[in-house]
Amino acid sequence: STTFRALAGPDPVVGGAPAPEMAQRELARDLADQAVARLGPRLLPSAVPADVAEFRSSAGNAAGSLDVRRGAPGSSIDFMLQSSLHCKVPNGAINITSILIFLNALTDAPHFLLELIQGSPTSIVVILDLLPRKDLALHPDYLQKYYENTQIDQQRGKIEALPQARLYRSPSLFVRSACSPTAVMVSIECGQGGERALEEIVRGQLATVTQEVLQIWLDNCADSTAAMEETERDCLLKRDRIVRTKSIEVDLTANLPRMFDPDVSNRVITEIRKAFGVQES
Amino acid sequence: STTFRALAGPDPVVGGAPAPEMAQRELARDLADQAVARLGPRLLPSAVPADVAEFRSSAGNAAGSLDVRRGAPGSSIDFMLQSSLHCKVPNGAINITSILIFLNALTDAPHFLLELIQGSPTSIVVILDLLPRKDLALHPDYLQKYYENTQIDQQRGKIEALPQARLYRSPSLFVRSACSPTAVMVSIECGQGGERALEEIVRGQLATVTQEVLQIWLDNCADSTAAMEETERDCLLKRDRIVRTKSIEVDLTANLPRMFDPDVSNRVITEIRKAFGVQES
Repeated sequence: STTFRALAGPDPVVGGAPAPEMAQRELARDLADQAVARLGPRLLPSAVPADVAEFRSSAGNAAGSLDVRRGAPGSSIDFMLQSSLHCKVPNGAINITSILIFLNALTDAPHFLLELIQGSPTSIVVILDLLPRKDLALHPDYLQKYYENTQIDQQRGKIEALPQARLYRSPSLFVRSACSPTAVMVSIECGQGGERALEEIVRGQLATVTQEVLQIWLDNCADSTAAMEETERDCLLKRDRIVRTKSIEVDLTANLPRMFDPDVSNRVITEIRKAFGVQES
Repeated sequence: STTFRALAGPDPVVGGAPAPEMAQRELARDLADQAVARLGPRLLPSAVPADVAEFRSSAGNAAGSLDVRRGAPGSSIDFMLQSSLHCKVPNGAINITSILIFLNALTDAPHFLLELIQGSPTSIVVILDLLPRKDLALHPDYLQKYYENTQIDQQRGKIEALPQARLYRSPSLFVRSACSPTAVMVSIECGQGGERALEEIVRGQLATVTQEVLQIWLDNCADSTAAMEETERDCLLKRDRIVRTKSIEVDLTANLPRMFDPDVSNRVITEIRKAFGVQES
């Protein structure tokens, strides 16, 4: 995987990276390995140009990587996207890691979504969800199948039980609406001198829970196919398109231009849009 | 209003009611008055039999009241339901107050919902929402109109900012899915000796916020009508029916049989089902 290589270049960022940042990177790498091991030939080789796979700001303060693997023809995998953004700021660095595995319209099963946003060496925001693709209030059977029967809410409970966990509420009402009621949305705040405590949580409970949630997704969603009527599929496609467009707006495409030169961020955003299959809105 | 009269009968419950319970009752009464003053002739007179308007358990430990006023023909009000349940338990009493104002299919605007569940003289669970009637991830315009433009999330923020507020997460994933991302779902816990503190919060911040949310609902939802295509209206009706059926299952009809004799609770549940327009599932 080339995902994190951009951060291991000539810039001495990796050697000197604080432990929580290394821990976050390893968590993401292990998780990606777990997915790739299971999905195997259903993922095509990486399909992004070299200058998007790894990129930097001209000022040298920011580096990023993006990897997109499309699903093989006939599989229900649409794409697997991994991204990593690193940006030095006056008092440290911001690190944002995302792993998304999105399904196509051969199934209505939820997508997998992980985002880690580390704004300081002692705190990290975690968003982890099986992103629903149907209106859960209109489809209690769907809620039962993917969220109740899988007991995934227990995973959320494990993270929220950490004394350092504070509920994180996205300022975007749309993001809150798009997530499932079992989504992990927390900020883990270890306070002054808490670098070591944060590292232990990331390597410990957070790694365990993200792996278990991914396993639930691999076991219940990744292989699923669903027969749908035409109107049902139309609704799914429309909902998918809105969620994808909105997610891009509030998320990656909001952060990239703040960190990178316009030509770099435009190039990266173009590839992300291509993966998501959405146009500029 | 007869809603709270059941608790003011021969049983000396009211005279000796602890202050937080009185405060909760007054909050609900003021809120109902605020709604009735605005909705006026759009509400028909109360339509429940006397033995449902007020009811008691044969053991004398529990009392309740139910008031349902249907919307006038041609109005977009479906019904306004107020209920109050009081049940003595070994260490005190449980008080549950609900005010629901539901709209019909002349509009797709959200319903108003308030539930107060006081399990002890020092703590109260608050559920306050404009209950969405469309899939918010599929309808960002709806989300913007009723939730972003009304700035209703600020009201949630006011309650959650209370140092005594703890996030309350319904054990029902369906309830969590049906609520909006701006729903107030908190438990206000004032701890040992906190009767007075709870009373002040109920009469203060909680009364203010519930009134402001109701006002937002009255100003933006109560009068609205919406032209809908047939498939759109079918979807709305289906969603309404599911939300209503599920809400009844997990809520009132779950509590009543535990507090009242079967003949009493069946009678009350029948009237609630009639108001909701749903059959036994």
